Amino acid sequence: MNYKLIIQYDGTRYDGWQRQGNTENTIQGRIEEVLSRMVQAPVEVQGAGRTDAGVHALGQVASVFLDTDASEDEICRYLNQYLPEDIGVAEVRQAADRFHARLNASGKVYRYRIGTGAYKNVFERKYYYPLGKELDVAGMRAAAAILAGEHDFKSFCSNKRMKKSTVRRLQRIDIREKAGEIEITYEGDGFLYNMVRILTGTLIEVGQGKRSPDSMKEILVGRNRKLAGYTAPARGLVLAEVKY
Amino acid sequence: MNYKLIIQYDGTRYDGWQRQGNTENTIQGRIEEVLSRMVQAPVEVQGAGRTDAGVHALGQVASVFLDTDASEDEICRYLNQYLPEDIGVAEVRQAADRFHARLNASGKVYRYRIGTGAYKNVFERKYYYPLGKELDVAGMRAAAAILAGEHDFKSFCSNKRMKKSTVRRLQRIDIREKAGEIEITYEGDGFLYNMVRILTGTLIEVGQGKRSPDSMKEILVGRNRKLAGYTAPARGLVLAEVKY
Repeated sequence: MNYKLIIQYDGTRYDGWQRQGNTENTIQGRIEEVLSRMVQAPVEVQGAGRTDAGVHALGQVASVFLDTDASEDEICRYLNQYLPEDIGVAEVRQAADRFHARLNASGKVYRYRIGTGAYKNVFERKYYYPLGKELDVAGMRAAAAILAGEHDFKSFCSNKRMKKSTVRRLQRIDIREKAGEIEITYEGDGFLYNMVRILTGTLIEVGQGKRSPDSMKEILVGRNRKLAGYTAPARGLVLAEVKY
Repeated sequence: MNYKLIIQYDGTRYDGWQRQGNTENTIQGRIEEVLSRMVQAPVEVQGAGRTDAGVHALGQVASVFLDTDASEDEICRYLNQYLPEDIGVAEVRQAADRFHARLNASGKVYRYRIGTGAYKNVFERKYYYPLGKELDVAGMRAAAAILAGEHDFKSFCSNKRMKKSTVRRLQRIDIREKAGEIEITYEGDGFLYNMVRILTGTLIEVGQGKRSPDSMKEILVGRNRKLAGYTAPARGLVLAEVKY
């Protein structure tokens, strides 16, 4: 039977979602470990988003085939009991055999939190980037309006050897101001390697007056990673939702 | 000059607020260390509430005499820069020389969070007690109504050698239900050692049907720690506010 899982994690101490060679310190690896023990057989979990080291998830989606008589709730409880305390499963549901969490995803929502004030938030310290500087939000919004839509985002991709298409569609980039904090929400049909973090670093530079909103056009046209801003730290980023 | 500090901390990895002998792993110790370095002289910080190991604070208040030309904001920034990331200073203000954070406090507000659902909240995992069982909130409220007011709370005090008065006044015990969570707010003029955690453990036992709300009367009259319920874990507790 095929299952759809909704997974949440504090990515701080992990090497990202994807299992890689012999490192076991990935979210995927931890989940596979627990499920393999449950069904007494090897399992392979497919995650919708391959989040980087240190990136969090509120609504990661995964699919996995399991040969078990356990109910959805029993699988969910088993996972939450044996997974470490920084990985949680919010939901387990049976899915059609053809469902594949990554290949079937039609879109993803990422959220990036930037602390702009002097306030040191000790309780949320792992979930935002403490920049500690005010940003020009109007300028950032003007830049975001240029970046939204369908473009070749090659300049916003860390993977130099990316041979497939680097064209993606960003449905929206919303920038919300809260007390001492700015939250940027990106919704898109797909994201390149480090794309959200490079977009964020570039928008921060616009907010600091180091780049003009209009310069976004040249960055897009140039198709060169060196034209865009820095890669904002992983800790401020969360995969909020996967759409199907 | 005397200063009033508002301090926040994630108490998870500390041995509580109060500096004790040769252990440096206390919040008070860490703050004194940083301030001593700043003014190049020994300093003693007085905290309003001596929170236990593992207990958090959103609004701890401390007072300290400092011989410095630095402004309030400079002291605040210095502290936030050199304190570990799980201790933050929200405010530094000059205070009258007679101000003493503990002796002048007229009341304190503590908040205790209990997870009652199956949901595993990975992001807030350090700040609530994952009981994972539904509780009878009406019964807990009936018990809380008996406990509120002025009473001898000796049964709710872990310190057997307490020789001073164990009479305290609880202005209110509010019990709020949220999705999968119960939050209990205690406001009182003062609290005995472990009092909030023993009150919480006792209210949880009422919520589980192990004790009747009415039995609170006998616990109060008995003046014996053994009559009350268990000491709820530190992680769910936060010192929310100190009143003057």
